[in-house]
Amino acid sequence: MKKLINDPADVVAESLRGFAAAHADLVRVNADPAYVVRADAPVSGKVGILSGGGSGHEPMHGGFVGRGMLDVACPGEVFTSPTPDQMLEATKAVDGGAGVLHIVKNYTGDILNFEMAADLAREEGIEVEAVITNDDVAVQDSLYTAGRRGVGVTVLAEKIVGAAAEEGKDLAAVAELCRRVNAEGRTMGMALTSCTVPAAGKPTFELGESEMEIGIGIHGEPGRERVPLASAKEIVERLAGPVIDDLPFASGDRVLAFVNGMGGTPQIELYLVYNELKQLLDGRGITIERNLVGSYITSLEMAGCSITLLRLDDELIRLWDAPVLTAGLRWGA
Amino acid sequence: MKKLINDPADVVAESLRGFAAAHADLVRVNADPAYVVRADAPVSGKVGILSGGGSGHEPMHGGFVGRGMLDVACPGEVFTSPTPDQMLEATKAVDGGAGVLHIVKNYTGDILNFEMAADLAREEGIEVEAVITNDDVAVQDSLYTAGRRGVGVTVLAEKIVGAAAEEGKDLAAVAELCRRVNAEGRTMGMALTSCTVPAAGKPTFELGESEMEIGIGIHGEPGRERVPLASAKEIVERLAGPVIDDLPFASGDRVLAFVNGMGGTPQIELYLVYNELKQLLDGRGITIERNLVGSYITSLEMAGCSITLLRLDDELIRLWDAPVLTAGLRWGA
Repeated sequence: MKKLINDPADVVAESLRGFAAAHADLVRVNADPAYVVRADAPVSGKVGILSGGGSGHEPMHGGFVGRGMLDVACPGEVFTSPTPDQMLEATKAVDGGAGVLHIVKNYTGDILNFEMAADLAREEGIEVEAVITNDDVAVQDSLYTAGRRGVGVTVLAEKIVGAAAEEGKDLAAVAELCRRVNAEGRTMGMALTSCTVPAAGKPTFELGESEMEIGIGIHGEPGRERVPLASAKEIVERLAGPVIDDLPFASGDRVLAFVNGMGGTPQIELYLVYNELKQLLDGRGITIERNLVGSYITSLEMAGCSITLLRLDDELIRLWDAPVLTAGLRWGA
Repeated sequence: MKKLINDPADVVAESLRGFAAAHADLVRVNADPAYVVRADAPVSGKVGILSGGGSGHEPMHGGFVGRGMLDVACPGEVFTSPTPDQMLEATKAVDGGAGVLHIVKNYTGDILNFEMAADLAREEGIEVEAVITNDDVAVQDSLYTAGRRGVGVTVLAEKIVGAAAEEGKDLAAVAELCRRVNAEGRTMGMALTSCTVPAAGKPTFELGESEMEIGIGIHGEPGRERVPLASAKEIVERLAGPVIDDLPFASGDRVLAFVNGMGGTPQIELYLVYNELKQLLDGRGITIERNLVGSYITSLEMAGCSITLLRLDDELIRLWDAPVLTAGLRWGA
């Protein structure tokens, strides 16, 4: 296992210590239970935005904590749900009296733990709403999920919903907006290589030298099909095609196009993929109004990419453009 | 070769088209000769800042073009110097009457071509100064270099010098500042895996399953030694030790600590490395005043990292903190 780590059991805790030291101007990190919280939390009168899930997907979610995005993130162990206790403490840390929104990716462990945490928080008098993201069109059920998996749209939802909360929208409005973003977005991913969970010490799956996996999940869960390597152009068709057909996106739609690296993919390839996606969407009459190209929801060192399309309207564009000041996304502030 | 590409011969051109489409608000991309230039270039009365070199190191340099950093970047083919003609056209594109600074990493091909380009530009009446970065303490000479290689400090110099040019400093002052940043910074890197140049189609070097290369260059050039895999703590000692001893950095120094990923290294590992570096520097009485953690000067999909330390004073801190608006670095704007 070739990784820049010490003891595999300490990877998440040590990485969080580094993150805390690097970004002390933006966040505080609580060690036990682990959460990453805005330095100025709780913000009185503002809806708190919480997300979380297994580690290994950085910068998601800790890298999205800060003004205009998340108030707090709960990192579990690698590819493992955080605990209800952890989510409860994080919820309490960001309750400024206006309630807290939980943004939950659709994985069975996360769903169960977030439900329990929401119940516990409500018992303590905190208003909580939960929205589940499930944008992955690759498979209906998977190794860790009943229904569709929550993937790339989660990043976009966190940005847009964070902006709305910053503007002072109430909990019901913020939750409704989050549901709308999830409903308007679709994603599909692929892998050229596997990843290795530190505690496992060996690759999550095996992929031949001339194979790739289409429809991969962010934990290396099997996708739709294992096929021979193909050109970037063909890969983009295989990802964007099902994404477009599913919503469906149609000629005249305005979209945010998000080309995401899985962790081990260099930028030179991501921009090449974006070039193919742009041509494909141009051909379908779909206009890219905004874009995001980079590694934002990753699977450790997996090589590969995902493509997310989000249908935009003027309000979503305005909220996307609003200032954000986090370690992972930063503009206008 | 597992890459998200089409024809290996088209990788740089296609990736640049994607970059141009994604960041049309910040830059224009000229196709032939290839350069990435600020959307508002030339800025009248401002010193133009130019850098360039082989592709495959993204976001360096094209990702650093924008307000407060570079005015223009010349990308060569992967790991290949741009041509003098390309550098000349780029120089002309950003000459706002106050001259142009060439920031050149110390590789033999780059040096020769930049010298020729500077001569050609001067013949056309453009004032040009060139500053060579050579911060890599790993080896004195290498496969592509006489003297030390230019690596991580180049990124920091581009930011700091870009801020000074934005403030209106003249060419002599900007060049002197660039030399000072280079003189105050040192770097050393390591690799867990090789990279594969698309046109070559096979790994640049072979590294056993339980080996790593200490002192690697950004083109996969051999480093100081090939040794058994070690913990992150030991790796940080092996990189930061020679960096500290070389300048030398001493107790009481204030530094910018830059933990850079080589392209295939996930963030969770980079922050873990930063945590080790912070502890090591604390133990030596060296204070981290600013930090940068991420993949900014890469070697395609190589897994590994480099550590750069830059000794700071109040002026360098102020210029580092100044607003920057590029695809790869963005704050305060």
